[in-house]
Amino acid sequence: MSYQVAVLAGDGIGPEVMAEARKVLREVEARFDLNIEYTQYDVGGIAIDNHGCPLPDATLKGCEAADAILFGSVGGPKWEKLPPNEQPERGALLPLRGHFELFCNLRPAKLHDGLEHMSPLRSDISARGFDVLCVRELTGGIYFGKPKGRQGEGENEEAFDTMRYSRREISRIARIAFEAARGRRKKVTSVDKANVLACSVLWRQVVEEVAVDFPDVELEHIYIDNATMQLLRRPDEFDVMLCSNLFGDILSDEIAMLTGSMGLLSSASMNSSGFGLFEPAGGSAPDIAGKGIANPVAQILSAALMLRHSLKQEEAASAIERAVSKALNSGYLTGELLSSDKRSEAKSTAEMGDFIANAI
Amino acid sequence: MSYQVAVLAGDGIGPEVMAEARKVLREVEARFDLNIEYTQYDVGGIAIDNHGCPLPDATLKGCEAADAILFGSVGGPKWEKLPPNEQPERGALLPLRGHFELFCNLRPAKLHDGLEHMSPLRSDISARGFDVLCVRELTGGIYFGKPKGRQGEGENEEAFDTMRYSRREISRIARIAFEAARGRRKKVTSVDKANVLACSVLWRQVVEEVAVDFPDVELEHIYIDNATMQLLRRPDEFDVMLCSNLFGDILSDEIAMLTGSMGLLSSASMNSSGFGLFEPAGGSAPDIAGKGIANPVAQILSAALMLRHSLKQEEAASAIERAVSKALNSGYLTGELLSSDKRSEAKSTAEMGDFIANAI
Ligand SMILES: CC(C)[C@H](C(=O)O)[C@@H](O)C(=O)O
Ligand SMILES: CC(C)[C@H](C(=O)O)[C@@H](O)C(=O)O
Repeated sequence: MSYQVAVLAGDGIGPEVMAEARKVLREVEARFDLNIEYTQYDVGGIAIDNHGCPLPDATLKGCEAADAILFGSVGGPKWEKLPPNEQPERGALLPLRGHFELFCNLRPAKLHDGLEHMSPLRSDISARGFDVLCVRELTGGIYFGKPKGRQGEGENEEAFDTMRYSRREISRIARIAFEAARGRRKKVTSVDKANVLACSVLWRQVVEEVAVDFPDVELEHIYIDNATMQLLRRPDEFDVMLCSNLFGDILSDEIAMLTGSMGLLSSASMNSSGFGLFEPAGGSAPDIAGKGIANPVAQILSAALMLRHSLKQEEAASAIERAVSKALNSGYLTGELLSSDKRSEAKSTAEMGDFIANAI
Repeated sequence: MSYQVAVLAGDGIGPEVMAEARKVLREVEARFDLNIEYTQYDVGGIAIDNHGCPLPDATLKGCEAADAILFGSVGGPKWEKLPPNEQPERGALLPLRGHFELFCNLRPAKLHDGLEHMSPLRSDISARGFDVLCVRELTGGIYFGKPKGRQGEGENEEAFDTMRYSRREISRIARIAFEAARGRRKKVTSVDKANVLACSVLWRQVVEEVAVDFPDVELEHIYIDNATMQLLRRPDEFDVMLCSNLFGDILSDEIAMLTGSMGLLSSASMNSSGFGLFEPAGGSAPDIAGKGIANPVAQILSAALMLRHSLKQEEAASAIERAVSKALNSGYLTGELLSSDKRSEAKSTAEMGDFIANAI
């Protein structure tokens, strides 16, 4: 099998963790006899520096020609003073999501055995563990709704954004959440604010309709404010959380932080033809870039998500995930996951990549 | 001095905790020579049962004639199947906020000395304590923005909500946040999503302009998704958090849950003439209603907020707050705040009220 992958390593730790993902992919290609061709493109801050904009035409064209995008991370202090629209994160990610209609964002987050101490939760809560899949709608809602803008003068000048959802948009993402729940603990928690938002009333209604086709999956509804709270008290009671774009932005970050190990979390953003963008959930971490200490696991796991979802190579994907588990279970960890008395055992970015590649 | 207060005790534990607040107010009136006249009105579920709607005309008229509203809590399983618009919470609270233009919501939340174990946070994080004042805009944004509704047919049927903020709305709530910070640790964290929302770009701009008048107060901006995360890692680094309506709804609940003691938190919702609605931050807790075990402290503290903000009786307000601190510091607590081995020392709702009233 032969594939094209657009590699957008980006800024900060992006290039160094991407190098480790490529190392692991090389092993997987050999073992499973895959032929993947990689082409690198600038994105984010480096693209602003080299081409004057965070998502150059050549990058977009390269992505169009590929079967999937393997994305690193973008942003850093150098570009923070730009207007929001031109900044690396928003100027690259939102147009990519819109252009390829990547409506489906999957963000799995679980508390790994042995890493409970990393969670900011009280020890009796983290001891119960949790394993949540956040299914976030990614191309609708208040992110893309029109009209959006400003009008008026002086004290009366006002800004406005429109939250907008159609039945079609809601039902396609809801189906994905229910399908995913079938392969897990068979529970969907749909997050909304139906006591205030018209969009949420429609959301709740359509989710109920979709649920009829999944009688084996339990459905519950929760308000976003309450969800934020309950995740702190009983994260173990959630399985799949189905969210609109804005609520998913907020909740998936809360859940990521609850694991306390952002360097292990990856994210898949896909469209209906299986094309997708795969990236670590954490940021570009400019403070540790270039030091060889960044955790490459999230980037490596996003390569696994790419193999599974866009290249349909389930076995290769699982092989990577097993190799990662082997590293974590043997206590083979980068420094940020070790308590201060064990910091001396910390593995470097490259050592992590080597271990995982060898374990394939 | 003579005042009129509209008492809207509502549902669930509302009436029983309100009785304790009245007990404490009686002592305060005697000691500070205040003449407060109370009139009770139905609101929420009980108003639906008695009058067919959650906010009857007589209740609204009564509130109009008063200097302040002392509110209990509304809602319960009995009314959960009603359409969202007619439910007790949304059908009573939103119209009251809109009618009296209660644009300013203050929600103080702190981790009390000795109650760190209640927080769902890891012990080393909760040991550092925190004391956050959430200043939430309460009559604008996506809650009240027009147009809001539905259109279209079949798969294309869509719902829409409008988020809308004017300079005037932003600057008046921002000023309140900066004033409040002056009396505290002199730091304002303004929460927005300026990388996506036009409203947030204006919000950030106006907040910056207001900040010029408060050179002694430090200002920082944070995205809502990041705020949700940072509150879990370093809650002690926040002082005043300034939020729009929707983001304040989410964050103030997250912060409340981080204290782990919702029964101690109260909330003030005010307009520009000092008229306000004062209520406990927790819900109507129908599961424990009528058992005499509900914590009346939040309701008692909301009476203190009423004395301070609407009746301008600072000394009386402080007297209540001191009496409450005395109870908490002496370990005089209701059951939900005690670890299981100390449950037998739990005080009843009435015992808490008596202790605090006597301490005035
Ligand atoms: C960079 C930003 C526009 C983006 C979002 O809000 O979606 C980010 O927070 C994310 O979650 O991927
Ligand atoms: C009941 C609901 C409409 C309300 C809100 O969202 O404002 C509540 O959650 C609150 O925070 O007071």
